[in-house]
Amino acid sequence: MGQTIFSDSTAYKKLNQLSKTIRDKKFHLKNLIQEKDRLEKFSLKSDGFFYDFSKQRITDNVLEELFILAKETRAKETFSKMVSGKIVNVTENRAALHTAARDFTHDRILVDDLDVIFEINRVNKKIKPFTAKIHNKQIKGDSGKAFTDAVVIGIGGSYLGCEFVYTALKHSVEPLIHLHFLPNVDIDNFGQIIKTIDPETCLWIVISKSYTTTETLANLNQALLFLKNNNLDPSKHLVTVTAKGSPGDDPLNKILDSFHMFDFIGGRYSVTSAVGGLPLSLAFGFDIFNRFLKGCHVMDLHALTATEKENIPLVSALISIWNSNFLSYPAQAIIPYCSALSKLSPHVQQLYMESLGKGVTVDGNFTDYETGVIIFGEPGTNAQHSFFQLAHQGRPFPIEFIGVVKPVYNKAQALSKGVYNHQELWANMIAQGQALAMGKNDENKAKYFTGNRPSSTLLINDLTPESIGMLLAFYEARTVYESFILGINPFDQFGVELGKVLASDIRNHIKRKNSDKTYEFDSLDPAAKFYLETLFKESL
Amino acid sequence: MGQTIFSDSTAYKKLNQLSKTIRDKKFHLKNLIQEKDRLEKFSLKSDGFFYDFSKQRITDNVLEELFILAKETRAKETFSKMVSGKIVNVTENRAALHTAARDFTHDRILVDDLDVIFEINRVNKKIKPFTAKIHNKQIKGDSGKAFTDAVVIGIGGSYLGCEFVYTALKHSVEPLIHLHFLPNVDIDNFGQIIKTIDPETCLWIVISKSYTTTETLANLNQALLFLKNNNLDPSKHLVTVTAKGSPGDDPLNKILDSFHMFDFIGGRYSVTSAVGGLPLSLAFGFDIFNRFLKGCHVMDLHALTATEKENIPLVSALISIWNSNFLSYPAQAIIPYCSALSKLSPHVQQLYMESLGKGVTVDGNFTDYETGVIIFGEPGTNAQHSFFQLAHQGRPFPIEFIGVVKPVYNKAQALSKGVYNHQELWANMIAQGQALAMGKNDENKAKYFTGNRPSSTLLINDLTPESIGMLLAFYEARTVYESFILGINPFDQFGVELGKVLASDIRNHIKRKNSDKTYEFDSLDPAAKFYLETLFKESL
Repeated sequence: MGQTIFSDSTAYKKLNQLSKTIRDKKFHLKNLIQEKDRLEKFSLKSDGFFYDFSKQRITDNVLEELFILAKETRAKETFSKMVSGKIVNVTENRAALHTAARDFTHDRILVDDLDVIFEINRVNKKIKPFTAKIHNKQIKGDSGKAFTDAVVIGIGGSYLGCEFVYTALKHSVEPLIHLHFLPNVDIDNFGQIIKTIDPETCLWIVISKSYTTTETLANLNQALLFLKNNNLDPSKHLVTVTAKGSPGDDPLNKILDSFHMFDFIGGRYSVTSAVGGLPLSLAFGFDIFNRFLKGCHVMDLHALTATEKENIPLVSALISIWNSNFLSYPAQAIIPYCSALSKLSPHVQQLYMESLGKGVTVDGNFTDYETGVIIFGEPGTNAQHSFFQLAHQGRPFPIEFIGVVKPVYNKAQALSKGVYNHQELWANMIAQGQALAMGKNDENKAKYFTGNRPSSTLLINDLTPESIGMLLAFYEARTVYESFILGINPFDQFGVELGKVLASDIRNHIKRKNSDKTYEFDSLDPAAKFYLETLFKESL
Repeated sequence: MGQTIFSDSTAYKKLNQLSKTIRDKKFHLKNLIQEKDRLEKFSLKSDGFFYDFSKQRITDNVLEELFILAKETRAKETFSKMVSGKIVNVTENRAALHTAARDFTHDRILVDDLDVIFEINRVNKKIKPFTAKIHNKQIKGDSGKAFTDAVVIGIGGSYLGCEFVYTALKHSVEPLIHLHFLPNVDIDNFGQIIKTIDPETCLWIVISKSYTTTETLANLNQALLFLKNNNLDPSKHLVTVTAKGSPGDDPLNKILDSFHMFDFIGGRYSVTSAVGGLPLSLAFGFDIFNRFLKGCHVMDLHALTATEKENIPLVSALISIWNSNFLSYPAQAIIPYCSALSKLSPHVQQLYMESLGKGVTVDGNFTDYETGVIIFGEPGTNAQHSFFQLAHQGRPFPIEFIGVVKPVYNKAQALSKGVYNHQELWANMIAQGQALAMGKNDENKAKYFTGNRPSSTLLINDLTPESIGMLLAFYEARTVYESFILGINPFDQFGVELGKVLASDIRNHIKRKNSDKTYEFDSLDPAAKFYLETLFKESL
């Protein structure tokens, strides 16, 4: 790849220098934001997507040097390679073609001899009639009733993105089928969901690329038992989204249908594949899902073609690197001033932390710099009444505000203090960025605000499928850009393996105890032994 | 108070020294946890509540010195003062008596001339019959139908704790009345909720101590308009939880009833007051709420009376300070291996970050040390498939695992890989702590794990109201202990004021524009002007 030149780049050294000068009080944000043309210089707009980074602790010099960093690390080049199907996931020897899942421009993209566009179209052409048949009641449950609900069995990348989009879209589009998410192997996750559905009108969607994910198979087994206990034929209530040839794709399986997902799209980037495509088309219809894909594609094209200086995901990645690698902020909050986007933070938390939480470069060397930060967040104004005390007077962390120009609700409303709720929401969003930047002097030190706390603001026009698509694709593009600049692989996740191996070992001990009550956990370490004995004793 | 002696204490200096030696590789956790009696030495149990801190980066010396720190900062003394009604909230000149809200031991606690116990009993004696009358249909909606749902209008401390407890308890107790939470001034929060309720069978609970909270009053106004548009008399559908004499407590208000909350209990500590008492008693009946209070009281007594070395919340606070002030971890994750506890992290996030995000000591001086960390979390095993990649191979942060010995679901279950789901859940919880501590060598650097990453594990027996009560009170006690040791005030939140003032200024500009379309935002800074013009233009 030849791109692990982050900390060797001339820009890196220059930015390190600049980060020292920026600590001087003349660069306090309360001074910086006085510059008359600051918003104009430090904001970008494209296709109804707006990004304001004027309240970041940057100067012209810093930004210039960040662009040089992007050039030196050949970020755009790697992005192009990714989109065209090159092997950018080097540790797993795979392409990373989530962008192909919504590519309305190319007729074919080849990976080895596989035409990726053809494969994706093939799956979508199956999703569309299948979900239509559910909606028009051609396909019904075993007892002859039409489906009203679907439970998505899948964990991590097989549900977080879909949950975000479902939660957002159901504000503006009334669901035809209501989705429920069953990620956790916790039996109470299952127990709560079956309280809220009617077994006769419920479809189960099992999502796992390998069809070996422990949690997902354990929940599938509960679902099968549940169907059996309700005298319902699983083959009328079960569909799978899985890799071609996986155990979930076996033609002998008694299921309604199976939809393929692919090695060239990783879990956390898979919302626009069948992983999101099937459940979201069930919920809202394929046409809504397709509009969502079109929004993603608009952002993909922008991320691919816009120059460094006009490229919103790339600039946003550079700002993130500036904050984390040069100003040493360990975290970033994502605060959508929008209830509909309440599941955005958990999605981006996975997307970003699993992509960027790496200690090794694409060349296989340990990084000599930090990668990735903690991402967390709740909707505003809620967050103002929760953890913003610490944001204003405790340890600082950068915040990304997200505003939606037009809300969904359009019926008659009451005024309070002379303004509408949505106006009040925006007044607060604007004020928080100001307060964080400006700070405030006060003789009473308890009422003193340091200020100089950075924030960005993203705006989208509305909560249409297209706008939600742009937002999703923005965070995907920014995440891969940040990784490419840092010279790490955003597509693998070896850090989750060790825990799986150790869990498997513990599971084997439990299994032995299940079949032999006299079995003792003596070969385990004292802590593990204690936990397992407590579990079997059912009491502390 | 005379307790701002944190960084002047001899223990502070000693701990700073120790924190340097603990970085030596002989203190790597993979070595430390080999000590045979480690679990015994570094774990505590009380009343069915277990705390394991054996996988923290501590030694006997460190722990000894932490106990000296607790003594030097007189943490237990301040806790006693708090419980007995002394003015521990010094900046606001108030007591902090959340423990009195569930004090089944004392007959009276005086604050000035007010008998706090009497006041609390007076409110609870009103909640019990009121909610019983709703349940037995003596009180019905305006159209004569019984209530089935209640919308809680309240933000921050007026909802996060209640939402946590409601979410947890509804796994084991079927709600009599279903609760919905309307915190956000976002009109789409309101718009979504009214889709899911029947106006004739819905009660609205307005929670605000001052009854001036902007978001809450804006949502109250929407609720009043909604009732009017549905031809329902608000006086049959509205109750308030508010301070005696507030605008919400006016006898002229057309409401069903009003329940008092008090200055001596702050919002984020108020779940056990009427703030949680009314909605939770509506949902589950007063007896369930009372059992929850009893669980809290058990933990309160433990926190008050156990010696430093046996005091679980105090030891947990010391470990938190060790990690944040001496080992420089900027964050902590709370990972309950339990879906029912999915709202614990957002609650503790507020409780802890609003209490500890301070830059000034109780003596009114700026702290010369860090206070508070970022708290975030999602349930396990979900989190393993989300951000644990970064936890294992990226920037380290301490994790608090929470396990529940017995799940709620007790029907016949399927086995997977020879174990039940709840056993699989525990296998994973145990394995994660091991993996974080031990790490793993691998020639392939992408598969190398540094290890030496600290974690704690809390266990509770079950999801009964008593156990949930203990868990809630544990986090409250630990939060105040941590603040007392750091010498800061956990009960004020001046950091949220500046944003309110600036929002009010922006609101006034919007208000003028609402009444005069020709009004221009020229007096605002260019960024604010741009945002408001976009808002009125309804498009980017």
